[in-house]
Amino acid sequence: MTAPTARTTATAAQSTTAPASAAQAAETRRRVPAPTGPIPVPPSGAPRLDVGLVTEMLLGDWADVRRAARESARRPELHRPEDVTVAEHRARVLEQMHLLAAEEMSHRMLPESLGGPNDNGGNVAAFAELVVADPSLQIKAGVQWGLFTSAILQLGTAEHHERWIPDAMSLKTPGAFAMTEIGHGSDVQSLATTATYDPETEEWVIRTPFRAAWKDYLGNAALHARAATVFARLITRGVDHGVHCFYVPVRDEDGNLLPGVRSEDDGPKGGLNGIDNGRLAFDDVRIPRTNLLNRYGDVAPDGTYTSPIDSPGRRFFTMLGTLVQGRVSLDGSANRAAQLALHIAITYASQRRQFTGASATEETVLLDYQSHLARLLPKLAATYAGAFAHEELLHAFDDVFSGRGDSPEAREDLETLAAALKPTSTRLALDTIQECREACGGQGFLAENRLVGLHQDLDVYATFEGDNTVLLQLVSKRLLADYTGELRSIDRAGIGRYIAQRAETLSRRHTPWNRLVQSAADAGRPRRSSESLRLPEFQEQMLSERARVKVEEVALALRPAAGKEPAEAAAIVNKHQVELLDAARAHADLVRWRAFSSAVGAVADDGTRAVLTDLRDLFGLTVIHDDLAWFLLDGMMSLQRGRTVARDIRRLLWRLRPHALDLVAAFDLQPEHVRAPIALGAERERQAEAAAHARSERARADAPISEKALKRTHRKG
Amino acid sequence: MTAPTARTTATAAQSTTAPASAAQAAETRRRVPAPTGPIPVPPSGAPRLDVGLVTEMLLGDWADVRRAARESARRPELHRPEDVTVAEHRARVLEQMHLLAAEEMSHRMLPESLGGPNDNGGNVAAFAELVVADPSLQIKAGVQWGLFTSAILQLGTAEHHERWIPDAMSLKTPGAFAMTEIGHGSDVQSLATTATYDPETEEWVIRTPFRAAWKDYLGNAALHARAATVFARLITRGVDHGVHCFYVPVRDEDGNLLPGVRSEDDGPKGGLNGIDNGRLAFDDVRIPRTNLLNRYGDVAPDGTYTSPIDSPGRRFFTMLGTLVQGRVSLDGSANRAAQLALHIAITYASQRRQFTGASATEETVLLDYQSHLARLLPKLAATYAGAFAHEELLHAFDDVFSGRGDSPEAREDLETLAAALKPTSTRLALDTIQECREACGGQGFLAENRLVGLHQDLDVYATFEGDNTVLLQLVSKRLLADYTGELRSIDRAGIGRYIAQRAETLSRRHTPWNRLVQSAADAGRPRRSSESLRLPEFQEQMLSERARVKVEEVALALRPAAGKEPAEAAAIVNKHQVELLDAARAHADLVRWRAFSSAVGAVADDGTRAVLTDLRDLFGLTVIHDDLAWFLLDGMMSLQRGRTVARDIRRLLWRLRPHALDLVAAFDLQPEHVRAPIALGAERERQAEAAAHARSERARADAPISEKALKRTHRKG
Repeated sequence: MTAPTARTTATAAQSTTAPASAAQAAETRRRVPAPTGPIPVPPSGAPRLDVGLVTEMLLGDWADVRRAARESARRPELHRPEDVTVAEHRARVLEQMHLLAAEEMSHRMLPESLGGPNDNGGNVAAFAELVVADPSLQIKAGVQWGLFTSAILQLGTAEHHERWIPDAMSLKTPGAFAMTEIGHGSDVQSLATTATYDPETEEWVIRTPFRAAWKDYLGNAALHARAATVFARLITRGVDHGVHCFYVPVRDEDGNLLPGVRSEDDGPKGGLNGIDNGRLAFDDVRIPRTNLLNRYGDVAPDGTYTSPIDSPGRRFFTMLGTLVQGRVSLDGSANRAAQLALHIAITYASQRRQFTGASATEETVLLDYQSHLARLLPKLAATYAGAFAHEELLHAFDDVFSGRGDSPEAREDLETLAAALKPTSTRLALDTIQECREACGGQGFLAENRLVGLHQDLDVYATFEGDNTVLLQLVSKRLLADYTGELRSIDRAGIGRYIAQRAETLSRRHTPWNRLVQSAADAGRPRRSSESLRLPEFQEQMLSERARVKVEEVALALRPAAGKEPAEAAAIVNKHQVELLDAARAHADLVRWRAFSSAVGAVADDGTRAVLTDLRDLFGLTVIHDDLAWFLLDGMMSLQRGRTVARDIRRLLWRLRPHALDLVAAFDLQPEHVRAPIALGAERERQAEAAAHARSERARADAPISEKALKRTHRKG
Repeated sequence: MTAPTARTTATAAQSTTAPASAAQAAETRRRVPAPTGPIPVPPSGAPRLDVGLVTEMLLGDWADVRRAARESARRPELHRPEDVTVAEHRARVLEQMHLLAAEEMSHRMLPESLGGPNDNGGNVAAFAELVVADPSLQIKAGVQWGLFTSAILQLGTAEHHERWIPDAMSLKTPGAFAMTEIGHGSDVQSLATTATYDPETEEWVIRTPFRAAWKDYLGNAALHARAATVFARLITRGVDHGVHCFYVPVRDEDGNLLPGVRSEDDGPKGGLNGIDNGRLAFDDVRIPRTNLLNRYGDVAPDGTYTSPIDSPGRRFFTMLGTLVQGRVSLDGSANRAAQLALHIAITYASQRRQFTGASATEETVLLDYQSHLARLLPKLAATYAGAFAHEELLHAFDDVFSGRGDSPEAREDLETLAAALKPTSTRLALDTIQECREACGGQGFLAENRLVGLHQDLDVYATFEGDNTVLLQLVSKRLLADYTGELRSIDRAGIGRYIAQRAETLSRRHTPWNRLVQSAADAGRPRRSSESLRLPEFQEQMLSERARVKVEEVALALRPAAGKEPAEAAAIVNKHQVELLDAARAHADLVRWRAFSSAVGAVADDGTRAVLTDLRDLFGLTVIHDDLAWFLLDGMMSLQRGRTVARDIRRLLWRLRPHALDLVAAFDLQPEHVRAPIALGAERERQAEAAAHARSERARADAPISEKALKRTHRKG
């Protein structure tokens, strides 16, 4: 498991010596329209966030790359169109792709051997910024370079690189990544397409044996792909060596399907309609022997199979490891999309007024309502946590993919971390965007204000590149394995004793007596127990214990499965599946909390650190609050203390209220990224005009008097 | 407050004597494709649901109306198109509207005086069924007949009815309901458009004083409306009598805007793109004096204002009461949409297979995974609860609007019930549709499988016709008023004592001692405490106490606001807004649980009652589980008992598993309603073909042997 590190320390320290960027950030801040009323500023002497500093922290170690990508994403020619047909949107995105290709958008991913800088982290960092231009463009770029080209790069060898990568990079060969089949998505091991070697002609015969084995949901497959990296079971000399990847041309120069290749269009989708997703099937399509991407397995002209990895299982998972790039990319993109949604909703909420209450003449700004703060600020806190955790994931990815820190353990850690962060960040992004859309009322439903489009496009992030449920299962399996490993480190005789001890500890937690002592200790000291919730040590303990105990409980519950027949064992595991997924989520929460804390800990500026600490606390306490029943039932928290959690969260909401605009300003979203009229001054102008009208009406001698006021006067008279 | 009644009793009893419909339901059931594997049926002797009976229960008291509307919704000419531009979709829906108008779709709403049956309940019941055809069509019909025509009917008098209703019904006059302004949606009282009476010409002068006062989001406003019912402040003789409704022609026969009327197009939206939503503004537009819809307020030729309701506040809320129809309609429609989503996702989940585990040769059906049951069945249970509660709301609405049970109290009860159910059912529908879409993976993202379109179209149900947050606030205000009324019934001297008592009771709940006794009582009897969770008395007590205590706690917390300056009082209320909304939701949960229980209690068939009781328990326990920390902290549940809730829910999931298909079959959704290929046999056929292929491969002598198996053999040999 990749332990969260203090990498952000360096970032934060650097940022204080980056005046140009700070100035840029200050400029951003000026462009954020001010609300009509007085901006709620903290009382003088109270902490204040240094927006420029936080912008730098969020830009992270690939700041220059991100800045350039943000600059690029401002261009109207890359933006998502509204109200176009699927065909029009696809055509537009293809054009945009050629623009990106001409600018060598993905050049950073290439290794030195191909003339590139081997900057995998930078490549993914730049990619994430594209989401604010058009998620369709982003994902189509991901298909072309992150999947199709990457497959050639990661699974092929030098000859393949030379033959195919230049045209893939330049988009001369648009390609499809033909892994998923209708019948099997996340279960790649069960793919049914076959590639059978024919030693007579030294060719592979690619076959789709039945309807469910059609490749499906492939970007570029419906229209644009000229070639595909096809995953199929490699069969030679009567032996099925499992899934390998083959380079298969599918269309000629004029776009006509090659003989034996069939294609279908997936048609309109819930979003991402700028991508021509479709299906491919192969009727005994023949390709040369050397079209096998042979880094991890090869076949000699006579059909002899060889592989540098002896175990078929390990070989398969090594090949699949290339998929992690997609997950890393989606984690970052989901986070960036959530930032955009929060920028729009929080800006609007700080200008939009509705209902009087606090004043007879002036209506209340939405963000001054407790429920509005409660729906937006915890999501803002989680998005910050997600940004810092993503930076750590990006480093782990860069270390492995650059080869600098590549080892089986590092790969496994990276895969687990990506499998934990991708499902939880895409979930957070979807929930955040939806909450933001509803928080903007009718305006939020208009396409021009972006939020509905973001939700539609990001919707599929939850189920592609590894379905969220399946990924969380992977994480929990790894956590269980780690736990079992821990057991194994104890000598044989000790295991039984150890398990008995743990079981006893857990069962003791389930009695009220233990808890009682805690309650008594807390009793009469609500202030102290409330203060302790804000202590990082307390949050760390709660969140790490929760992550650990959840794994432990499942591990103990699954003990009866050991030694059982597969069917019976599977049934036992299935009875605890919800808990398994829950344990994986608890792990992801912990990773994010630690990343946030380590970033906060490295901030030198007192005001900034104070505000970010509040935000980190809001994140930590919200996680605890959302699972409070578990903490209470497990005896990890006394009822006395449990009662203070909600109250503390509410206090944090009001403490953070004056910093809400600063916190979204640090996301460094320029007007050309935002593009939502309600967050670019339209609402502010309307409010100002209405307020001016109300003032002039009040000043007018002959303004109508209200019937209500009249009746009051009559009664008094 | 409308107390849940046992109306469903009659429904259930009737259904047993409706053989034609039972046959129809059986037919429906036959059409639901069977899964490839053995259908999980309960062991012989175990309870079995009578699908026909439950279909009848859900059809409710307006069964014939619903049946006819379902038949109508099967017609392809009414279905939502895919991949069309906004303009094309709008044109199509306008055509469909003419079809519905020709069939006198909304004739039922008309009173006897206009030749109608005055069947308001039936009118709304039929309306709800339209959602499965195209939500755009449904809402455009709602705008025309439920809002525009209804405003004339409810707020106008006989002369208005004769002059305008026939053309509104026939769609000769497409109309807009011009209430909401850009600046004020849910806060109708603050609308800024003015209608100033000019006694010289005996005309009203309609004026939009500033940009935020433009009418916005109005269906029909961008293109089709010829007239609008405009809500504006009535000003005569220098007095502002507050918001009234005026009939204002806006376009001529050729569709050109009339002088002084301006219009803008809202453009593409997140969904419902078949409706031409837009804005309207009025530059001193003059209309005759008699265009004031004068049921609740009138002006004589000389400008004298009169009203049958003296209090301006009460008059306003009486006029606004007509809005309740929209909320009742959305409650039913949201429920029907959730039924459709669940039908699709549960059918697919019972056929789709992924990953082996339980068997070496056959993959596991999705619905046999615990996490899949856990994501879908609680939503199914809540949707059933929502259907039964909606039937009660429909009766309350019908009683009031038919005039049979109209009284200020009944209206207020109806409005509170609608304000509680609409936000919670639209929330449930959106969450359910999203869960269903994700549960269907990549297939769920394809437009052809309907789920993404349903989410897009229903998205705005959460914020229109009364924003969900605002409606829940209305409910909590009413609940607080009821509570205060309860206090008032105690004599003056007793109030202080009473409050002190309640406060003491509550504070005692917050100490652990009270709880301790409960724990001790439960201790060592987990079986018994688990059983008691399934007792309806227990659930009733938990849910009703929760609803009551949440109001009580807020009421006590708000006591310091009494007698304070408005600004200070508002600040205190605002500090408890989240709790206020929470109390309203708790009330809605209770209403649904009681409606479900009363429906279940009336079932004569043992098997059906047993299954529905499990489903009701799943609903009740899920509500308790989702708020478990509150029950524990408030001392309403011991930790001992709290620990059994999740376990009991899991048991219920498995008990209900064999009935999942029956439960969705009772929704009576025909293939022409469903239209999603994955729920109409496509997946089943693919699975059957793949299974046949696997069987023939296993039988083939020269089938390739896997490298893994080969290695195992070698090792053994």
